[in-house]
Amino acid sequence: MDYQKIIDGLHQKHSKEINKGKVASYIPELKKIDSNKFGINLFTLSNQSFGAGDYQEKFSIQSISKVFALTLALKEMGEKIWKRVGIEPSGDPFNSLVQLEFEKGIPRNPFINSGALVICDMLISKLKSPKTEFLTFVRKLVNTKDIYFNEKIVASEKKHGFKNAAHVNLMKSFGNIKNEIDVVLDFYYHMCSMEMTCEELSKSFLLFANDGIIPYNNERIVSLRVSKRINSSMQLCGLYDEAGQFAFKVGLPGKSGVGGGIVAIHPDLYCITTWSPKLNKKGNSYLGFKALEAFTTITEASIF
Amino acid sequence: MDYQKIIDGLHQKHSKEINKGKVASYIPELKKIDSNKFGINLFTLSNQSFGAGDYQEKFSIQSISKVFALTLALKEMGEKIWKRVGIEPSGDPFNSLVQLEFEKGIPRNPFINSGALVICDMLISKLKSPKTEFLTFVRKLVNTKDIYFNEKIVASEKKHGFKNAAHVNLMKSFGNIKNEIDVVLDFYYHMCSMEMTCEELSKSFLLFANDGIIPYNNERIVSLRVSKRINSSMQLCGLYDEAGQFAFKVGLPGKSGVGGGIVAIHPDLYCITTWSPKLNKKGNSYLGFKALEAFTTITEASIF
Amino acid sequence: MDYQKIIDGLHQKHSKEINKGKVASYIPELKKIDSNKFGINLFTLSNQSFGAGDYQEKFSIQSISKVFALTLALKEMGEKIWKRVGIEPSGDPFNSLVQLEFEKGIPRNPFINSGALVICDMLISKLKSPKTEFLTFVRKLVNTKDIYFNEKIVASEKKHGFKNAAHVNLMKSFGNIKNEIDVVLDFYYHMCSMEMTCEELSKSFLLFANDGIIPYNNERIVSLRVSKRINSSMQLCGLYDEAGQFAFKVGLPGKSGVGGGIVAIHPDLYCITTWSPKLNKKGNSYLGFKALEAFTTITEASIF
Amino acid sequence: MDYQKIIDGLHQKHSKEINKGKVASYIPELKKIDSNKFGINLFTLSNQSFGAGDYQEKFSIQSISKVFALTLALKEMGEKIWKRVGIEPSGDPFNSLVQLEFEKGIPRNPFINSGALVICDMLISKLKSPKTEFLTFVRKLVNTKDIYFNEKIVASEKKHGFKNAAHVNLMKSFGNIKNEIDVVLDFYYHMCSMEMTCEELSKSFLLFANDGIIPYNNERIVSLRVSKRINSSMQLCGLYDEAGQFAFKVGLPGKSGVGGGIVAIHPDLYCITTWSPKLNKKGNSYLGFKALEAFTTITEASIF
Repeated sequence: MDYQKIIDGLHQKHSKEINKGKVASYIPELKKIDSNKFGINLFTLSNQSFGAGDYQEKFSIQSISKVFALTLALKEMGEKIWKRVGIEPSGDPFNSLVQLEFEKGIPRNPFINSGALVICDMLISKLKSPKTEFLTFVRKLVNTKDIYFNEKIVASEKKHGFKNAAHVNLMKSFGNIKNEIDVVLDFYYHMCSMEMTCEELSKSFLLFANDGIIPYNNERIVSLRVSKRINSSMQLCGLYDEAGQFAFKVGLPGKSGVGGGIVAIHPDLYCITTWSPKLNKKGNSYLGFKALEAFTTITEASIF
Repeated sequence: MDYQKIIDGLHQKHSKEINKGKVASYIPELKKIDSNKFGINLFTLSNQSFGAGDYQEKFSIQSISKVFALTLALKEMGEKIWKRVGIEPSGDPFNSLVQLEFEKGIPRNPFINSGALVICDMLISKLKSPKTEFLTFVRKLVNTKDIYFNEKIVASEKKHGFKNAAHVNLMKSFGNIKNEIDVVLDFYYHMCSMEMTCEELSKSFLLFANDGIIPYNNERIVSLRVSKRINSSMQLCGLYDEAGQFAFKVGLPGKSGVGGGIVAIHPDLYCITTWSPKLNKKGNSYLGFKALEAFTTITEASIF
Repeated sequence: MDYQKIIDGLHQKHSKEINKGKVASYIPELKKIDSNKFGINLFTLSNQSFGAGDYQEKFSIQSISKVFALTLALKEMGEKIWKRVGIEPSGDPFNSLVQLEFEKGIPRNPFINSGALVICDMLISKLKSPKTEFLTFVRKLVNTKDIYFNEKIVASEKKHGFKNAAHVNLMKSFGNIKNEIDVVLDFYYHMCSMEMTCEELSKSFLLFANDGIIPYNNERIVSLRVSKRINSSMQLCGLYDEAGQFAFKVGLPGKSGVGGGIVAIHPDLYCITTWSPKLNKKGNSYLGFKALEAFTTITEASIF
Repeated sequence: MDYQKIIDGLHQKHSKEINKGKVASYIPELKKIDSNKFGINLFTLSNQSFGAGDYQEKFSIQSISKVFALTLALKEMGEKIWKRVGIEPSGDPFNSLVQLEFEKGIPRNPFINSGALVICDMLISKLKSPKTEFLTFVRKLVNTKDIYFNEKIVASEKKHGFKNAAHVNLMKSFGNIKNEIDVVLDFYYHMCSMEMTCEELSKSFLLFANDGIIPYNNERIVSLRVSKRINSSMQLCGLYDEAGQFAFKVGLPGKSGVGGGIVAIHPDLYCITTWSPKLNKKGNSYLGFKALEAFTTITEASIF
């Protein structure tokens, strides 16, 4: 299949489309981005890269980082992590705090904010130097040193992150946060502030298309079983309240972030990443979602 | 792969296991079943059938019938059905009524009771003789005339179905039920009361492993696209509040019923059905879930 | 105090006011009323009646009837009724179904619809001829035979009462409704359809200002203790989600109905009733609430 | 009426009763109290004091302080405070966070924790030296200098107050908290840590029985209208989820605290305070509630 042609076509077509999305406004620093940026990259297990538009430009990966955190936690601590975080979809966002209260401080899954905060708390307890080791881990997946946290984004999120503070305090009241509130939030915001390109994101997710093994150096990060489980958790919980729509229309496991990125995985073949900062009403990239739907429709790609 | 040997082994192993499940008690007629029944069947696209235990014995398929209803509705009315029912996981059962109220009578997906009731309402509006046509449709999928409703089960469910009546009345108050309450409930309970064997269920689900085409007669029921979407909706919503666990541990799309049946689909290969009446706390067959998890672990089968 | 002068003044002043309320629309029959009707009546324990405007015209008392039902239930069965219905305010209407589900089918109080439906269910079990005996009971309180159900209203409510049907079915699923659904709803709708004038309503509520005794014939209906408890339940739960505002601004126990009536009780002195069909956003009479607030401000009446 | 005899009798009778309550455990410092303490005091507008048991011993008044905060806020800022806090009962505690989220950070009333935190936030913005001025205000009501905060209790609450921190962060995310999180919590915990005797509490609440005027020096604190409104808000929201039961069984406005105190007000006559540290399941003093119910039954006192 001529992926380059398909991707070029999609980029061209969707660039002209009227974009009904809006840039995330709750983090002031994120609003400064040029909202017309649009990149697509597909990276195969056979080390081929196909890109279009701004696919080599860095952007804030935000919630996509939760997949790295989950993977690192599973690598370091194994499946016992599931005692402190669930694996079911979360239903409506409206319910998030009440569910957390009803379920005694155990978040529904590792991709809602409360779940990622618990994963951060575990990594803080486990790692000597959590932020550095997290960065090193992601850099290794991509085989580059050129990945950094953005301290301005961290500062901006801290200044406006009262809802996350509400969640972490509620969980601590139930005993499901072990470290200091501020330390957990600091790690969480750093992780979310990481900046990567579409191409780097595609590359970093290849291990999930490759049964848990980094393709370029054949290092096993997690077992085949765990790798498939990470994919299944992305499929069920990776796009907030649009996980169903994404499974339905795109048909691949994926993860989105409010920076406008979405990564999707085709097991045994490739990863594909889109970036466009304007978000739809559910908080996922408006153009990115459409481009991925068009891509799997054209290529008839689907895990189902 | 020697499926017969694997299935025999699983049947033998799990038959000896202590079954911590309990037969569904809210429908008195269902309680009369011999709770030690246990059957497994795998049916391939190449028309091979592998069975163990009580795989040729009829049982009440209950919610598994919701997949037939959805498929028939998509066949008859196309994707406009999604205006009246969603496609997202439902979160906690505790929230079901409040979600329905909050979302103005639009059920989250076609596999929760309220969603299936809306699908029934659509079929009643569309079909001349809904119950007969529904039965005919399922019989065709299996290529048999030997499938029937169980009127005793229907009567028993009607006598105790006040919660379903609450849901359908709430939806009617929002205008999302067009027909008479009693007519909708009558069709719904008939559909759920249908009795089939493991082997018949595997066979009837083969179209979903075959891009929407019945294998034995090559009749297309739904498009490839719709077929994949039905699979994705099963993956995300097919096992109630254990959809995440099922995706995580079994890794295949599937649908369960409180009669103790579970059907799972491996695209392009086969369907596999288990039956054991005792249910776990989430309302899914205790042994069936375990047997399917073991099966996909041994065979390394997974869509992810 | 010159009640006649005060009431005349209030009637005059508020008649000129721009009425921001709207007539209840969910019962089509109720919409047929002339929305400019406005009546006030104050009836004292010393048998004096002061009226202004349409205070001798019949209107649909709707939820005000729930006080009669509660009183009759307490008279017939005593305080054991509290095993099946609570006495706490209900919070937001949004929560009504979820609270009912969370609290296992026990309604929060006898003045929300679900609570009144349980009271109806109890009266049906207890009385030989519930509708007739209910009518007889209310007629006795007023010392008149001229009080009737309105069968057109009953028919109209039945035709649109799917939400009430949802509540009663949910409660029956928890075992807190003993009689047939249709029988309970029929009694409930008859009770709500009763038509009375402001003056009749004031008179009928005098027993609550008189420690449980009907003033005109000195018949004790309930004990002093029970009478005070009925007043307290009206104070806390009598005006739906505006109970707090009503206690705060009016300062007397009271009960409203969607027909536009509000009755308030000044213990040891009088009852005062207003009627104006247009309702505020909380479902209480817009003018009536304002007139009562003005009345207690002028007279400095308050139980607090 | 011989109040001394009645109170002695109640103290004697209830001292012998088996106390099914439990001392509040979530604030470790509070657990150190002798759980058998039991005091009652009634203080009249004519300056008579009737006491029994430990009525002159200091204890932690906890949430009773919320009445002082509300009164001081109304005195300083008037009724505009109601733009940031409601006046309706809150329903189930289970809903507290979801209600706060649903209602955009506006707490239901000033006596739930979130409401009191907003009142604290207002006082911090308004007063130069909030803690000192608050202490001065309460001391004036009692005409004593012998009232203090307990810094050990403050420290203990801060160490375990993650749920309050969750609430205040959620409200800040909605813009309904203007000051720093830590400053608000510090003032809140100081206010709650105040220690007073039953007799001091009765005396301090006399203004609410006296139309807003301190009896001993005739200083008006709030208007008659505001005084009655404070009473009505206590009646509807003063005993958490037992406000309905308290209105029903005791029949007077009142306020409780987890330190085991309850104050009740009989307008125009007296205030009565009980103290017994063991709490019932709703968080109100087990013995205190029973003693007050017995007191109003014997004396036939009720506002209703």
